[in-house]
Amino acid sequence: MSFGGIVMTEISVSKVEQAGVLPTDDQLGFGKIFTDHMFIMDYEEGKGWHSPRIVPYGEFSFLPATIVFHYGQAIFEGMKAFRTSNDQIAVFRANHYLNRFNRSASHLCIPQINVEEVKAGLFQLLELDKAWVPSKLGTSLYIRPFIVSTDGYIGVKVSSTYKLFIILSPVGAYYSNGFNPVSIKVEDKYVRATKGGLGQAKTPANYAMSLNAQAEAHEQGFDQVLWLDAVHRKYVEEVGTMNIFFKINDEIITPELSGSILGGITRQTVLELAQNWGLKTTERQISIEEVYEAHAKGELQEVFGTGTAAVISPVGELSWKGQKININNNQTGEFAKKLFDFVTGVQYGSVPDEFSWMDKVTV
Amino acid sequence: MSFGGIVMTEISVSKVEQAGVLPTDDQLGFGKIFTDHMFIMDYEEGKGWHSPRIVPYGEFSFLPATIVFHYGQAIFEGMKAFRTSNDQIAVFRANHYLNRFNRSASHLCIPQINVEEVKAGLFQLLELDKAWVPSKLGTSLYIRPFIVSTDGYIGVKVSSTYKLFIILSPVGAYYSNGFNPVSIKVEDKYVRATKGGLGQAKTPANYAMSLNAQAEAHEQGFDQVLWLDAVHRKYVEEVGTMNIFFKINDEIITPELSGSILGGITRQTVLELAQNWGLKTTERQISIEEVYEAHAKGELQEVFGTGTAAVISPVGELSWKGQKININNNQTGEFAKKLFDFVTGVQYGSVPDEFSWMDKVTV
Ligand SMILES: Cc1ncc(COP(=O)(O)O)c(C=O)c1O
Ligand SMILES: Cc1ncc(COP(=O)(O)O)c(C=O)c1O
Repeated sequence: MSFGGIVMTEISVSKVEQAGVLPTDDQLGFGKIFTDHMFIMDYEEGKGWHSPRIVPYGEFSFLPATIVFHYGQAIFEGMKAFRTSNDQIAVFRANHYLNRFNRSASHLCIPQINVEEVKAGLFQLLELDKAWVPSKLGTSLYIRPFIVSTDGYIGVKVSSTYKLFIILSPVGAYYSNGFNPVSIKVEDKYVRATKGGLGQAKTPANYAMSLNAQAEAHEQGFDQVLWLDAVHRKYVEEVGTMNIFFKINDEIITPELSGSILGGITRQTVLELAQNWGLKTTERQISIEEVYEAHAKGELQEVFGTGTAAVISPVGELSWKGQKININNNQTGEFAKKLFDFVTGVQYGSVPDEFSWMDKVTV
Repeated sequence: MSFGGIVMTEISVSKVEQAGVLPTDDQLGFGKIFTDHMFIMDYEEGKGWHSPRIVPYGEFSFLPATIVFHYGQAIFEGMKAFRTSNDQIAVFRANHYLNRFNRSASHLCIPQINVEEVKAGLFQLLELDKAWVPSKLGTSLYIRPFIVSTDGYIGVKVSSTYKLFIILSPVGAYYSNGFNPVSIKVEDKYVRATKGGLGQAKTPANYAMSLNAQAEAHEQGFDQVLWLDAVHRKYVEEVGTMNIFFKINDEIITPELSGSILGGITRQTVLELAQNWGLKTTERQISIEEVYEAHAKGELQEVFGTGTAAVISPVGELSWKGQKININNNQTGEFAKKLFDFVTGVQYGSVPDEFSWMDKVTV
């Protein structure tokens, strides 16, 4: 088999005996339902990544001593396939996500994957399970590639064996009742990541780090937390599973990729689009004081998060050390709306894909 | 069944059909061989921890969507049982480790365990697998309790189900050829943990964080890394899987438990012993500059790590930004030796257990 000029191992396919029952649109939530099949590949030192295969989605056997349970050497990705208005299946910026997967791998001492090989496996899996891609506007098929370390040995060390999985989950519309600006707590007690740590990688550690903060914020009535930097506790980093943008005086500002935040694919998409639209965009350190001062001067026009799940999530309220500010009267801003409409337009096929974001699975 | 006044669920026991072959002393390494049985308990929201049972050690089925693989909500412990000179089996400071297990649980939003119940399960398991506790001086049975989150759902949230395991591994002598002072790199690029993070918990995230630094240090010829604090990058924190002590001008100094390091049980044991012996002990911030200055003035008498695996690990060399210093001519210090002899003496039964550190499994 050949893909993009690279010769690859044949992917063996073992299908389910009976196809699962497809969920209806109103049964879709996030990450609860999985399709019939999954893609798997193994790694062994000396042998490299091998045995790419598609098998029925189902349980896997692990020894209790499997190293991932103890020392968390693991990474993941989160990307999406869409059913477009003319019934094609396409994946949004697949190579960007898979390249980030490899960057995460290097932070965790996990062996690099061949992006084209894994992409070929993913696309074959999508072709096989394409009936599972829901069609209603706003719904999509969430794609979760992940790698876990599998040595059955409990010393702290880099594993010599790994398993890569790709599992697929049809997900419901994020905004089933229109935009709903979120209320965000600026976290001043817990810290998510620090320079010199793993904040730039998509790895379990960062999410384990966030559980207590999230739980406390929820109890206090907030939807999410906005992280500040570990050293000065004042520079804005990112939100739970989103990057953050500020529109101040017509300038689009987002924290620079300083080493402790995830370089979001949606973040990059927004920066590219804004530049293409002739707006001034800046990636730099921005302190929470500066955001509050801009608000006081009436210059804070919009705040929104960006991420694969929500695409754009308008922020209606920020609360820092008990001080609350309202953004744009708790209404979705014009720029956020325009971004959302454009990006989802391309994803669902109603807007021409002029930047070649979409990779077609079916032709 | 009743234990320490608490009424507990009966522990069901299902034994192996055929006992495994016991390893010989020279086959023992660390964490590679496991005993015949393991202890398991399940947690479900509403039902609490339930179904404590002892079953043959073996593989377990997990769905690929199991939350621990993705978001790392998990904790563990590491403690030891010894075969004493008069052939009794005893566990070192069991309650201290199990209480720390619960403190780690709270940092990770994992439901608290009943320490006495888990201890009863552990002791029953030890009784059953007591033949696996090796007898040679320096060998022991390493005990690894751990909890993983088991919801089969890939949203970032606190799991509603968990599994607790206790697995047992006979381990070889740490110092089979006598003490061997280690060479340690003071890490100035990577950071392990930060205040407001998970550094005080025994959770996979912290060990995932250390892989790259360890790998680079090994390549450069060092045994381990000494972490500095995340904010100032100058205060000493701890070593890979050990706390660190300095003997300066006859004072025993160790970094205070400031929120980013693990409160080691061996660390506590050393502090208690040193105080009992009438030495001056101090838990406080200590900068790496201070350590180097003490060395320059000829006042740095000893440096050693403390941890369950090694008990005491003398440090012979420190290297910070390329500047190397030798400690005590790369020889094991008197105080380190005295601590090691006393603690291991109590563990193996040659020194009376005047502080009640040992919990007997067999009578
Ligand atoms: C921590 C974190 N930051 C930011 C993002 C947004 O990144 P992306 O736009 O690639 O989904 C995510 C989600 O993927 C995330 O988990
Ligand atoms: C990060 C870390 N610090 C310190 C220690 C030493 O703690 P203890 O003496 O309880 O084994 C360990 C090992 O348990 C550890 O993993």
